[in-house]
Amino acid sequence: MLFEITKDSLMNAVQHVIKAVAVNSPIPILQGINIQARADGIIFTACNTSMTIQSTSPQDGVSVNVQRTGGVVIPSRYFYDIIRKLNDELIVLEIKEQLILTVMSGQSQIRLCGMDSTEFPSINRGEQFFPNKLRINNALFRSTIKQVAIVASTSENRPVLTGVLFECDNNSLRLIATDGVRLASRTLHIESNTNDSFNVIIPAKNLYEVSKMLGNEDETTEIEVSNNRVRFIVKGLEVESALIEGNFPSIKNVIPQFYLCEILVDKACLLTAVECVTVLASESIIRLVAGENKLKLLSRTAEIGDIENEVPLLELNGEEFIISLNGKFFIDILRNSDCESVRIRYAGKTNPIVVFPNDSLMSTLFLITPVRTHN
Amino acid sequence: MLFEITKDSLMNAVQHVIKAVAVNSPIPILQGINIQARADGIIFTACNTSMTIQSTSPQDGVSVNVQRTGGVVIPSRYFYDIIRKLNDELIVLEIKEQLILTVMSGQSQIRLCGMDSTEFPSINRGEQFFPNKLRINNALFRSTIKQVAIVASTSENRPVLTGVLFECDNNSLRLIATDGVRLASRTLHIESNTNDSFNVIIPAKNLYEVSKMLGNEDETTEIEVSNNRVRFIVKGLEVESALIEGNFPSIKNVIPQFYLCEILVDKACLLTAVECVTVLASESIIRLVAGENKLKLLSRTAEIGDIENEVPLLELNGEEFIISLNGKFFIDILRNSDCESVRIRYAGKTNPIVVFPNDSLMSTLFLITPVRTHN
Repeated sequence: MLFEITKDSLMNAVQHVIKAVAVNSPIPILQGINIQARADGIIFTACNTSMTIQSTSPQDGVSVNVQRTGGVVIPSRYFYDIIRKLNDELIVLEIKEQLILTVMSGQSQIRLCGMDSTEFPSINRGEQFFPNKLRINNALFRSTIKQVAIVASTSENRPVLTGVLFECDNNSLRLIATDGVRLASRTLHIESNTNDSFNVIIPAKNLYEVSKMLGNEDETTEIEVSNNRVRFIVKGLEVESALIEGNFPSIKNVIPQFYLCEILVDKACLLTAVECVTVLASESIIRLVAGENKLKLLSRTAEIGDIENEVPLLELNGEEFIISLNGKFFIDILRNSDCESVRIRYAGKTNPIVVFPNDSLMSTLFLITPVRTHN
Repeated sequence: MLFEITKDSLMNAVQHVIKAVAVNSPIPILQGINIQARADGIIFTACNTSMTIQSTSPQDGVSVNVQRTGGVVIPSRYFYDIIRKLNDELIVLEIKEQLILTVMSGQSQIRLCGMDSTEFPSINRGEQFFPNKLRINNALFRSTIKQVAIVASTSENRPVLTGVLFECDNNSLRLIATDGVRLASRTLHIESNTNDSFNVIIPAKNLYEVSKMLGNEDETTEIEVSNNRVRFIVKGLEVESALIEGNFPSIKNVIPQFYLCEILVDKACLLTAVECVTVLASESIIRLVAGENKLKLLSRTAEIGDIENEVPLLELNGEEFIISLNGKFFIDILRNSDCESVRIRYAGKTNPIVVFPNDSLMSTLFLITPVRTHN
């Protein structure tokens, strides 16, 4: 193996794949990055039990120049820390002795003990992926992941709740996540030329990693699904994730189908007010009082103090209401709503509050279960 | 107590004094900020056992407008978190009921339970400060603290080593710190109109807090010393620190008075090379080989690999040498040297390496004790 690569290209590839490195794995080879130099370019791969990330730097004679093919698995952390510190634009990687990678750049010469790349797990496990691929615009996909994955559970008590349900039917893809107290759902129209329908649960933390790679907003992510895995393909990058087995709770009966009151509020005003009130909220519980032309927000912590805040209502349709809920959960939802205003629907003391970011699509929906209080 | 203050002024004052709040103190009042509204302005004070910080916002009728004098001690964390979130430019603070501070801003109204400010420790403990004050330019003082305090010990095994020695004699002030392996010293010429001389040891972590407050580079810090305390006064701010008792080790015999070789190296080149080589350095030990026209840097970690780097020498006067030292310690020193190049003096295998930032003043000196290695 012998190739030249610019520092930018190398850093870019390593920064992406290093997210999948199994840092604490008992299997040493999984702590490494697999580098494969082929005639048509260099492939960098890292994987853990849940996810594989592969980055391809094509041979172009400028940023990448492969002179001798070959491969090796090298310790990821040391490799990354060293190339970060190199200050020459061009880096040469070569295997001169068996399994020893020599890195040369400017006045620096590094030798790293590598591992045999034939022992590295392959990204292509012979899975049968469904022939139909989904295509989603990167910017849209990233904002959808951000909105929905935020409410996925972080506790392993119920593994299905740590994932995001992808519900695909005809030309619509619905993403749903819930931790039992909150729920987020967004429906996207997608390009698809068959009538395949499928339901898969994808680990939320893997989706976050995918969302960070959707750099070019105008391009498209391809999604392929098999029975056990899902694959996301963006320019030069391929992420394969395991699916979570199990049944996602049905949300049909969770979303209130009627409402007693609907209010419209400026999002930025509301977010600031909720953040402010939550500071003094014992167990993060804040109270909302919707009445006349304003929404009052209240909270208190014993022996410290209390706070009252209000935001003007742009609309109120229905009866006035009072409800208590978790302020931190409300903040998460509002921070991830890219819109000028939000619609909030009240369907009675024991039903979840429904929050709609008031954008042109009205495709996103959040639920928060209220907290019962004594007074 | 009743006063109006702009959010900027209030945030500025609270951000400064909150650094001295004794967050985990068993004495509740020390977890608070003492707010005193006087006819001439508002004084904010916080203190822990080692340091007191006082910020004064003078009455100017614009950013501060005192309408009724008075005082209260309020819980610092809640207060800070709330005022951060207020989005109106003007904040009104009032005591309507006994020890209850009402904060009003825009549509927000907060009530915080306060504590009796007469129980708050006074910054003026009746100390007799020496009549003579030192005056140092803020920018110079800040860079000096950064350079010297970095080598102070963080272990409480020998408390004197957690401090920085201020050695004042005639018109010269020398700051010295050491952790037993490294040493830093810088001598400043100061304005002083008497011949007082004194030696005091000031906790390094308090000096760091002082250095962060030296915002205006053209202004001057006043330093007052008593037998037990030191006081730093900059515009609107006063920091009082306890001194560390004990004898600072004499450094007279530590600094080599001769050298076998002196080299001159570009600082940026050397820093990058040391950072790079230290990544692969087992126990952070790197080796320097000064010879001909270049300085070679080497390190290795068993079973991972090795690295060799080199930087050109601008000058070499004396015999070639090889020495091993702690790369991280070397990085600390180089990062805090504001200069184009550094002079390094070698005085034999068992003597410390001396590093001088090669600026016009040549007032700073660092020592690093070499590491003995087998080969």
